Amino acid sequence: MLIKDIVIIGSGNLATNLAFEFIKSKKNVKCIYSRTENNAKILADQCNCAYTDKLDELPKSADLYIIAVKDSAIEEIAGKLGGLSGIIVHTSGSTPMSVFPDSIKNCGVFYPLMTFSKADQLLFRDIPICIEANLSGKNIDLMRFAKSISKNVYNISSDKRMMLHLAAVFACNFTTFNYTVAEELLQKNDLSFNLLKPLILQTAKNIMIGKPAEHQTGPAVREDEIVMRKQVKILSDMPEYKEMYQLLSKLIISTKHKK
Amino acid sequence: MLIKDIVIIGSGNLATNLAFEFIKSKKNVKCIYSRTENNAKILADQCNCAYTDKLDELPKSADLYIIAVKDSAIEEIAGKLGGLSGIIVHTSGSTPMSVFPDSIKNCGVFYPLMTFSKADQLLFRDIPICIEANLSGKNIDLMRFAKSISKNVYNISSDKRMMLHLAAVFACNFTTFNYTVAEELLQKNDLSFNLLKPLILQTAKNIMIGKPAEHQTGPAVREDEIVMRKQVKILSDMPEYKEMYQLLSKLIISTKHKK
Repeated sequence: MLIKDIVIIGSGNLATNLAFEFIKSKKNVKCIYSRTENNAKILADQCNCAYTDKLDELPKSADLYIIAVKDSAIEEIAGKLGGLSGIIVHTSGSTPMSVFPDSIKNCGVFYPLMTFSKADQLLFRDIPICIEANLSGKNIDLMRFAKSISKNVYNISSDKRMMLHLAAVFACNFTTFNYTVAEELLQKNDLSFNLLKPLILQTAKNIMIGKPAEHQTGPAVREDEIVMRKQVKILSDMPEYKEMYQLLSKLIISTKHKK
Repeated sequence: MLIKDIVIIGSGNLATNLAFEFIKSKKNVKCIYSRTENNAKILADQCNCAYTDKLDELPKSADLYIIAVKDSAIEEIAGKLGGLSGIIVHTSGSTPMSVFPDSIKNCGVFYPLMTFSKADQLLFRDIPICIEANLSGKNIDLMRFAKSISKNVYNISSDKRMMLHLAAVFACNFTTFNYTVAEELLQKNDLSFNLLKPLILQTAKNIMIGKPAEHQTGPAVREDEIVMRKQVKILSDMPEYKEMYQLLSKLIISTKHKK
């Protein structure tokens, strides 16, 4: 079965990026749901489609219902979608497919491994999409659909997806926090964050080749105690960042010796 | 005075990148020093210049001597370079200019804010170079020289450079470690690190616009306790990464509430 008619449940960062991607690739977004009617309306107006804040008013005949809401709301929403014949998927890295109740005949997962914001519409072509489905026929449909927007589509089980999401927290969320700390340190000293941007881009580009550990530089991996002591001293009035510095430096050294 | 003849003291990642950059931009690299003669020879052969493992055999008439060695060796080397008339600079973020003894007439700092490896020859055009000199005339010479290879050259004092280096440790070294942990988690679960590469690049690109904190996503900033508990549980057999996860998640939450 070819997936054509889509309902998007949610109006946040991912829902917005998905909606625009589907419009761009000429899919038929039939309806946007949000528990806040105005949020549904804002996105639906941009997509030129219907909207609702009532789950029982969703179109019954869509091919695909994409639940793109916060993890803690998936179960409740899924519980209200029984009886639909289309495939119902969620988009969460850390939620197993077993979140769906038996009342849902065709269910699965459509997890794009990316960080999304409403401000920036990403191209899905290079974004890995991890799919899973309860029935092999639906898996084929979902795979074909995902491949129509991305060239990197993978069958990934709930267990592995959870590992992938955890790895993404380290690689993306914790990294964004590193940038935040760096910016705060610079700002306190009237230095522009722009100074760090070439380094940040290069650090990300480096790991495209080889193993990340091969690109480890800095005082910790050199075990340069003098520099580390100086830097800990600078951080003495920011105890939370001092603790972070000491822990990460310790882990960089111990990981180096583990190899 | 126009800086033409250059001596490079060191043969590591930065020394190698500098040597190739100078050759490319038609500067005259006169000699490479390394305490390990063979390392000096390998780099000098590629630069078609002289080499030595004896500091007292360095050419006396160069315009610029660049000390690109590990921080802990700078002081000892600088102590042996008295009497030269050229400008002697080190390249360290965390070492103040005061490391140079009085016997050195013209001294300064030439600090490229970047992570270097021998495997990858970087273009210096976009790399910020932070300079400092003990005499204003020499500062002008050094500024002109740095501007001949980079379009981002700044006068930065020793105190501010130390802050910049500390910020770079967070933004680059700790980030590379995040990538290392992510790769280890994936490898243990037979998942390819390639899956994370688009996310890593996008995470770096995101901070080119706005403040890094605006790009913070993930379970911690959403204060999604259920996902965080699941992820901590997955890490229960890797106590060091569990500690890192818990600390960083806690800091992401407290930083969010600080704003």
